[in-house]
This record gives sequence, C-alpha cells and structure tokens, in this order.
Amino acid sequence: MIALAEIALFTGASYESNGDYTVKNVGSLEHGVAGDLTYLSGGSYFKFYETTSASFIFVKNDFTPTRTDLIHLFVEKPEKAFLAVLEKYYFKYPALSGVSKSAFIHSSANCGEGLAAGENIVISAGCVIGTNLRIFHNSVILDNCTIGNNCLIFPNVTIREGVVIGDNVVIHSGAVIGADGFGYANNSDGSKIKIPQVGNVIIEDDVEIGANTTIDRAALGSTIIRKGVKLDNLVQIAHNVQIGENSAISSQSGVSGSSKMGKNCILAGQVGIADHIDLADGVIIAAKSGVSKSIKESGIYWGIPAKEIRNSKRLEAHFRGLPEMSDTVADLKRRIEELEKLLNK
Amino acid sequence: MIALAEIALFTGASYESNGDYTVKNVGSLEHGVAGDLTYLSGGSYFKFYETTSASFIFVKNDFTPTRTDLIHLFVEKPEKAFLAVLEKYYFKYPALSGVSKSAFIHSSANCGEGLAAGENIVISAGCVIGTNLRIFHNSVILDNCTIGNNCLIFPNVTIREGVVIGDNVVIHSGAVIGADGFGYANNSDGSKIKIPQVGNVIIEDDVEIGANTTIDRAALGSTIIRKGVKLDNLVQIAHNVQIGENSAISSQSGVSGSSKMGKNCILAGQVGIADHIDLADGVIIAAKSGVSKSIKESGIYWGIPAKEIRNSKRLEAHFRGLPEMSDTVADLKRRIEELEKLLNK
Amino acid sequence: MIALAEIALFTGASYESNGDYTVKNVGSLEHGVAGDLTYLSGGSYFKFYETTSASFIFVKNDFTPTRTDLIHLFVEKPEKAFLAVLEKYYFKYPALSGVSKSAFIHSSANCGEGLAAGENIVISAGCVIGTNLRIFHNSVILDNCTIGNNCLIFPNVTIREGVVIGDNVVIHSGAVIGADGFGYANNSDGSKIKIPQVGNVIIEDDVEIGANTTIDRAALGSTIIRKGVKLDNLVQIAHNVQIGENSAISSQSGVSGSSKMGKNCILAGQVGIADHIDLADGVIIAAKSGVSKSIKESGIYWGIPAKEIRNSKRLEAHFRGLPEMSDTVADLKRRIEELEKLLNK
Repeated sequence: MIALAEIALFTGASYESNGDYTVKNVGSLEHGVAGDLTYLSGGSYFKFYETTSASFIFVKNDFTPTRTDLIHLFVEKPEKAFLAVLEKYYFKYPALSGVSKSAFIHSSANCGEGLAAGENIVISAGCVIGTNLRIFHNSVILDNCTIGNNCLIFPNVTIREGVVIGDNVVIHSGAVIGADGFGYANNSDGSKIKIPQVGNVIIEDDVEIGANTTIDRAALGSTIIRKGVKLDNLVQIAHNVQIGENSAISSQSGVSGSSKMGKNCILAGQVGIADHIDLADGVIIAAKSGVSKSIKESGIYWGIPAKEIRNSKRLEAHFRGLPEMSDTVADLKRRIEELEKLLNK
Repeated sequence: MIALAEIALFTGASYESNGDYTVKNVGSLEHGVAGDLTYLSGGSYFKFYETTSASFIFVKNDFTPTRTDLIHLFVEKPEKAFLAVLEKYYFKYPALSGVSKSAFIHSSANCGEGLAAGENIVISAGCVIGTNLRIFHNSVILDNCTIGNNCLIFPNVTIREGVVIGDNVVIHSGAVIGADGFGYANNSDGSKIKIPQVGNVIIEDDVEIGANTTIDRAALGSTIIRKGVKLDNLVQIAHNVQIGENSAISSQSGVSGSSKMGKNCILAGQVGIADHIDLADGVIIAAKSGVSKSIKESGIYWGIPAKEIRNSKRLEAHFRGLPEMSDTVADLKRRIEELEKLLNK
Repeated sequence: MIALAEIALFTGASYESNGDYTVKNVGSLEHGVAGDLTYLSGGSYFKFYETTSASFIFVKNDFTPTRTDLIHLFVEKPEKAFLAVLEKYYFKYPALSGVSKSAFIHSSANCGEGLAAGENIVISAGCVIGTNLRIFHNSVILDNCTIGNNCLIFPNVTIREGVVIGDNVVIHSGAVIGADGFGYANNSDGSKIKIPQVGNVIIEDDVEIGANTTIDRAALGSTIIRKGVKLDNLVQIAHNVQIGENSAISSQSGVSGSSKMGKNCILAGQVGIADHIDLADGVIIAAKSGVSKSIKESGIYWGIPAKEIRNSKRLEAHFRGLPEMSDTVADLKRRIEELEKLLNK
C-alpha cells in the first residue's frame, strides 16, 4: 500500500485528483484489478486500456484520456516510470545474509566483504571473490574461479574450475558454466579420443544467465560472453564461442563451437547457429532458424537455412502457392497439347 | 514372484490353465522373456504377439489365441489391467522417511505431517507445506512458497520464492520453478534495463514436471500451469504463460511469454510457440513445428510456421515434386517455342 | 613452461633448431600468442598458418615451411601429437580426494577403493560402486545403483534408483539419469493416468554425458547407452531408447521413446528423432532435422522430415528458385493465350 502522491512525486508524474489515493499493487493493463497501478505503453495495447480494471495508469504526457474512472498519471515515458516503481517498491529477491554453517569455503579462497552464502554451497580452493556476492543454497564453485563484485548466484548452479566472471552478473538456477566442450577425435573403428578442453569461460560485467543454461569452456583459450549479454533459459553456448556486447539469446537456442556473434544481436527462441559462423553486429535471427553461413550485414534473417527475412517470406508465400501453381502447369500442358494437335504436330 | 491366480483375481481376468503358475516379472510384448507378464494392446503390436517370449499375456475378452504356449488372461481392457498390476506390484519410488539431520528447514516454515526430507534440502522462511511432502536430497525451496498435500520433489530441484503448488504434484530432478522471466527494456546504446519480474508461478493439482524443465515466474501476476498438466524434460515455459487443464508438452518444446494454451492440448517434441499466442482447446502441434499465429480450432497442425496438417502434408508433397514440376515447365517452354516458330511468331 | 626438447622427445618430433626453447602454453593456430605451441591439421586452417603468432607448431612430416619465424615440429599426425601433449602436460581436472565430512553414504552402500567424495554428495542404500569414483559436490545417487571403475561425476548430477553404469564414464553437471519416462494413458475426460516407469537406464563403458542432459528410465526393461557413446549438453534421451556404440549426439537434440540408433551414428545440433524409429549404423543427421521414418542405409540426411542430403539440397535449390519458376509459368501462360488467340481458339 503506497500513497499515489508518493509515486507521482517519485516519477515526476502529474495527475488530476481530489482525494488521497492508495496504490494496492501493480498489474498488467490486461489483467490488472481494482487498486492496481499499471501503464499504457503503445499501439497494440490500447484495446486493454478500454477494458482494464486497474485503477491507476501511467500514460504519455500527450495522451487524451477517454475513461473517467481511471486516475491518469502523465509522464514522458510510461514504461520507464512503471519500471522505476517496480524497482523501488516491489522488486525484492529473497533475503540472504551471513555465511551458513553448512557452507564450505576452502581456506585458500579469498572472499570480499558482504558475502552472503546459503546452505551447502561450495567455494573451492584458489577462488577470488569480490564484494557482496550472494550465492544461494547448494551452488558450487570449483577451483581457481574469479568472480567480481555484486554478483548473484541462485540455487543449484555449477561453476567449473578457472571460470572468470565480472561484476553484477546474475546466474539463475541450474546453469552450468565451464563444463567440457564437446570435442573428440576419431579412431579408425569409430571409438573416440577426448580432446582435452584446457580453456576456460570469461563472463564480463552485467551479464544475466538463465536457468539450466550451459556455457562450455574453450578447448584452447576462452569462451567469452561480453558485457551486458542476456541469455534466457536452456541456452547452449559451445566451446570457444564469443557473444558480443549487449546481445540477447532466447530460450532453447544454441551457438556451436567457435562461432562469434557481434554486438546487439538477437537470437529468438530455438535458433541454432552452426560452428565457425560469424554474425555481424545487429543481426537478428527469427525463431527456429538455422544459420549455416556467416552473416555480414545487420538485419533480420529467418529460415532453415536462414535467409534475409523478406526473401524468406516471399519464398514462404510461393511455397503456400504450390498447389495452385501445380494446377496452372497442368492446365498449360493440356492447352499446349491441344495446340499441338491442332497444328498436326 | 507373484502367483498368476492372485493377478487374475486382482484384475478380474479369466484364463484356462491346469497348473499353479508364477509370474516372475513384467515385460513388453517385444522384449519380454520367459516368466514375464505382458499385454496385447492393439493392431500394430500383433506382430510381436506372434514372436514374444513372454509367458503370460493380457488380451481382450474377444481375442482368439493362436499360440498355445502362452497363458492368455482375458480382460475387457488389457492395457488398464497391466497398468493396475504395475501400479500394485512393481512400481515403487525409493524410500524416504523422516527428516535428515542435514536438512535445513527455516523456523518460520510450516510443514504438515508426514514430511520426508532428504539430505541437504532447504525449506526457506515463510513456506507453508501440506501433508506428506517427500523432498529428495539437495532440493531447495526459497521463501514463502505454498505447497499442497502429497507432493513429490526429486533431487536437485529449485523452487524459487513465492511459488504456489497444489496437491499431488511431482517435480523431477533439475527442474527450476519460478526463475525470472526474460524481460528487458533497451537503452539507446543497446544496453538493457531489467524489467523486474515481480509475479510468481502457480501450479495446480496433479501436475507432473519433467527433469531440467524451466517454468519462469510472471513479470506481473502469475504463470499458471492448470490441473493435470504433464510436462516432459527440458521444456521451457516463459513468464505469464498459461497451460490449460490436462495438456501435455513433450521434451524440448517451449512456450513464449504470455501465450495461453487451452485444455487437452498436446505439443509434440521440439515445438515452439511464439509469444502472445492463444491455442484453443484440443489443439495438437506436431513435432518441430513453430506456431506464430493463434489457433482457434482444435485439430492437428504442423510446420514452420504451423499449418493445418492436411495442408502441410499437401504442401510437403508438392515440395517433393518440385524437380519434376521444374522439368515439366522446361518441357512446356520448349514446346511453346516450337509452336511459336511454326507460327512465325 | 616446458622444454621444447622434452616435448619433441615425447612426441617423436624432429625439428631444426640451435637454441634451447621453452614452450609457455598451448594455443590454437588462430589465436595462439608468442610462446604457444600449436598445430596445423589440414586444408582450411592453412590461412591461419600464415598469420599465427604462436611460436611452435606441429606439422606433417612432408610439410614445406614457408615461415622462418616459427619452429616447426615434424610428426606423422600433428593433431594426435598435440592432443598427446595436452593430455600429458595441460589437462587436469580439479583435485578431489578423500571423503568429505558432509558426504552421506548409506551404510548399505558398497564403495570400492579410491573413492573421492565431495561435499554434500549422497550415495544411497544398496549402491555398488567400483574403484576410484570421483563424485563432486552436491551430486546425488539414489538407491541400488551400480557404478563401475574410474567414473567421474561432476557437481549437481542426479542419478536415480537402479541405474547401471559401466567403467570410465564421465557425467557432467546437472545431468539427470533415470528420471521417469513420459508415459500416460488417457481417461475419457482428457485427464491422465501415469504409466509406471518400472525399467532402468544402462550406461556402458567409456560414455560421456553432457551438462543438463536427461536420460529417462525405461517403462519396462532398460534405456541403453552403448559403449563409447558421447552426448553433448541439453540432450534428451527418452524411455526405452537405445544408442549404438560410439555414436555421438550434439547439443539440444532429442531421441523419442523406443527409438534405436545404430553404431557410429551422429546427430548434429537440435535434431529430433520421432518415437519407434530405427537408424542404421553410420547414419548422420544434419542440424535441425526431424526424422519421422526409420533409415536403413548409412549416409547423411537433412530436413524436416529428413531426406537423403543430396535430395534435400536439390529441393532447397528448387525452393529458392520458386519466384523465378513462378515468373516462367506466368510468361508461358501469356504466350499460350497469344497462340490460342492467333488460332482462333
């Protein structure tokens, strides 16, 4: 329960109102209920503005209200105002403080101030940990890892030996960082010789890694996740991959060995990138695509194999038209046969 | 070793036999060995009836045996009779009882009777747990979760704060329930602002969740898995998704943010559903499909993008016929050129 | 820091040199730096030979050097020589020895000599474990499992009851072996009856299992992973599947219930195999393919559904040519109409 006046003051919102209102909760435009604060972001959401049951709504300064039963809060950027309110008043990860008795921290590990270590966590020999690490229950960090400041590790995470992690990195439950890359040489009978994976993983600042995502260590050198990258759940990053700054990868996508993505790239869900591929900055790959050749220009690509999206959509339209084209060809064949008969050919 | 007479009595089966038989084990029709009990379900399995090495077989009441070396057990529904035998005599999860010394249960958590808590489990502050929870080793429940009666949690599961779970829910190892949804706003330089995910996950009664499956918490409100839903391994359920009653999702499929599936839907393996999609009740999506538009009628759909399956199959047939059609077109072109020459055009 | 002379002696390499050289590290041909040892394997890597900054390089006996600033080590098989050096001098998993105080080993479990058991591991009742098992922190083995000699289990692995594992098996973090198969019968209202999964998983010698991979137990009988199989991360193996000797499955691929793969098969990334499929020995499935019919001949297959790859590629070429074919057909139609007019038809 927060006074509307406080929220308006905090976000610089103006609103017309006579009474003392209280915000009970936050909600989406579509599902918000009485007492909720919400926001109107843009075009396609306007239909929900007309029906929402929320009580308070951030809108743009130039918005013309059509509903008199809502309290409108006028701001420059409704979504940003709403996010600021979420961040300040509603968002709270579970508390964790102190070091639990069941935590195992090797005597040779060096942990900065402010460590919060949950039950049964393991920080192994030779680790160097910055300040304010929060590591939740049952997560494991193997030998000689380096972790920066203000990182957050959720339960049941595994970080293998020698991984290097920057500041403000968030790792969700079940993620595995630094498992062996998938590399084998073949004997003549088909049996396999493991190629030792002697490299590591480097994760720069401000990266967030989703639940059950896997990032393999390099065969030689480092697999590198650059500053600001966001990985969703169940993503696979193979050995020696490099993901460029601020790129985002959606769930169940995979990047194969030694491929490099530029900055500000996006992989939608269930995308696959073959090995030794380069993606330029700003490349966006639509869902379920397979990329088998390097892409040198920013743009949107789709398909298996992925093509520039206008091309893919044109091909898809032709594909849908195949039965009609088949009929046309059969009709032309019949007419040609008639003409041939007519000319005694 | 169970007396055949006991099994016949339990399942109401009739059989002709002179001796006292003993069932050694259960087996499939295809791979069963001497002493095994098996069953004949239907059509395509008949070939295995002719060759099976099993000794005892449930068949339909109206079945006419052609093998004299098998003992036939006549019942109305062979599969159900066999399942009942499995359930009663053969199916047993590992024993777990009492609360291990290494379990951590916060003093403010409220656990019902019959709790079985394995090694190193964590039940955090404010949790309210029903009766007969069995939670296996190294699983973690964060703050303020509510769990119903008779639930079963296998090892290494993570349940994040505020998740609500009904009765008779089974969660397999490595599953992560309630990790943050994948939501960011963009700064102009491409760097990302996290959209706080302040919602939760609600899992209703009789749900089963596969190994290493991830179900994200809602941005606002709840991600909801309705009564009787079954999720296979490595499935991704994004924030604010709703899965309708008794729907089933096979391995490695993913449902993107805010999409809603109706009742009794099926996603086969490696299916992707885009965000903000609605699927009607009874929609079945064939393997590897990508659904990019809402589907309003029950039926079977396939393809990327998914289409009604008869349409997809017709298009696939035309696709396979492309080389032939290309030859036909080339032939027609040649014949037209001849006709044109003939007519001095 | 290793003397080059020692490496040459160990690998049987010959080289021309006057001084006493020291190898600082190993590196790839592309990214190696001064002091690194690297190798030249074949054709497409030659461009990196021309630019590498590494100092020492294994090359074939018949290679003609064009760079005088590199020390060339002549051997019969450069890659094998390099792998031998990696194996001997550079590859080292983190140390683990003794049994931690926080390990829980049931009194009825029988562990061979040389057990190294990390923090918070669980070995349950009735397990029979060979010699030299290294099981890292927070991994769990449930009741009555059998594990051979010299196995390695990384952190946060779950092995369910009754699983049988051979010698020299490596299981990476987060893998789940033996979770219930996904099997249900339907009631008439759509609600589901669980088919008890009473089988197990058998993993033969020399298998390696990737991070967060899931291998389900059989409904009846066993899911079987044959000798020498290698599974990448996030792979799904369903109940009753059999994977043949020395086959390799790349990340995010899945094999559905009861399918059987032969020996020396390869699934590239994100492949799906439907249920009850047989793949012959030596079948290779290219990335993102879906296999819906059994394949009886070795070879390379691609597509959804998968086809022999030359056929797939021919179809893909025709697919790309659809806009042109459509134009051709329109042109032919116009010309036929003209001819018909001319002939007064």
